[in-house]
Amino acid sequence: MAAWGERLAGVRGVLLDISGVLYDSGEGGGRPIAGSVEAVARLKRSGLRVRFCTNESQKSRGRLVGELRRLGFDVSEAEVTAPPPAACRLLQERGLRPHLLVHDEVRSEFDQIDTSNPNCVVIADAGEHFSYRNMNRAFQVLMGLADPVLISLGKGRYYKETSGLMLDVGGYMKALEYACGVEAEVVGKPSPEFFRSALRELGVEAHQAVMIGDDIVGDVGGAQRCGMRALQVRTGKFR
Amino acid sequence: MAAWGERLAGVRGVLLDISGVLYDSGEGGGRPIAGSVEAVARLKRSGLRVRFCTNESQKSRGRLVGELRRLGFDVSEAEVTAPPPAACRLLQERGLRPHLLVHDEVRSEFDQIDTSNPNCVVIADAGEHFSYRNMNRAFQVLMGLADPVLISLGKGRYYKETSGLMLDVGGYMKALEYACGVEAEVVGKPSPEFFRSALRELGVEAHQAVMIGDDIVGDVGGAQRCGMRALQVRTGKFR
Repeated sequence: MAAWGERLAGVRGVLLDISGVLYDSGEGGGRPIAGSVEAVARLKRSGLRVRFCTNESQKSRGRLVGELRRLGFDVSEAEVTAPPPAACRLLQERGLRPHLLVHDEVRSEFDQIDTSNPNCVVIADAGEHFSYRNMNRAFQVLMGLADPVLISLGKGRYYKETSGLMLDVGGYMKALEYACGVEAEVVGKPSPEFFRSALRELGVEAHQAVMIGDDIVGDVGGAQRCGMRALQVRTGKFR
Repeated sequence: MAAWGERLAGVRGVLLDISGVLYDSGEGGGRPIAGSVEAVARLKRSGLRVRFCTNESQKSRGRLVGELRRLGFDVSEAEVTAPPPAACRLLQERGLRPHLLVHDEVRSEFDQIDTSNPNCVVIADAGEHFSYRNMNRAFQVLMGLADPVLISLGKGRYYKETSGLMLDVGGYMKALEYACGVEAEVVGKPSPEFFRSALRELGVEAHQAVMIGDDIVGDVGGAQRCGMRALQVRTGKFR
């Protein structure tokens, strides 16, 4: 195994996952992972470009950044790449009007989007809003479309909260895919387009960047397929 | 295409699906499908053996039969093959103690089963009980097992109620499969073992039986793989 110095040679920018790397979310705003506040501060002092690349789709970026800052992290909203803005760009480019199956917290991210007479469904980590009634409504919208379009903000299997492992959006995406006979389009990690937009915002090329995350598929696999290097931490959902 | 007489030559027994073939379930006990009450009566008068083979897992057989009788059908509980009793046999044979993610209506079917200290999860069409909290609890039980076992009562994509199409257990099964990285064991149609037990109860061989249903996978495909003939009706979920 090559030494760390060699493996990270030429790196100019770092993409950091948030949940499971910086903190575990949960009651009362969650809990930072030991050493992570200082690690972010050191990365920033080092001269490397740093950006936060998350699949968080249950909270608005404002709320997420507020929680992280209260925990001591040096992070601003402008430094965060998250699925909702990417989804809004995609919806507008393609003239799609979504039925939203999302958490109330993140609904405001879609304020500028026309949601009348839906011609697609957008699903995000809706948490407690994944009721049978809400799932059935999304299912019925899709079944009523001649050309059903399902857009999923990430496809994570689960994440870790301070109280334990929690189902993420991926399972619910699979449920709608199966029931409706469709394949979802994923906006967020591990979608290559999502990593590429994070790299543009970071201002470095793929070969100059390293992704640090706790998800072997979403973070590590996705980044590597884009030509980036990747490190998996042993915190968060790592088992 | 062969004439009906030829195609049904040698048939001695008929397995009838219930939902979408005899009736559409829904508010107030549902609605019979036109002609089906008389069709069951004629089949029974014809001397053919008749049995009802359903994936219904949201109601107890007693409740289901009560609803059908009120709609005018000649059917008794002893004539119905349904997943819960088959699941109970499987659990007892293998010493499995289930965590039940099922509708309250069907919980009584598992009264004789030890549910302490669960070592598997049984999922059925739980309807409104498919809350995020209940799904997450089932997920956490599975993730806590060294050798996770997920048993699904059917794997239907959806069914038709009088108010419209409704998500069936299959999607929720897929959600848990994906989140936990397991493959569910299906008890109910299209499982060959389930069809074979219905044939034993009917008292005829596979080549002497015809399955009549509205589900191309669960009813028609499953029966044909067991050597039976099958007919798909154009009612129920047929689109």
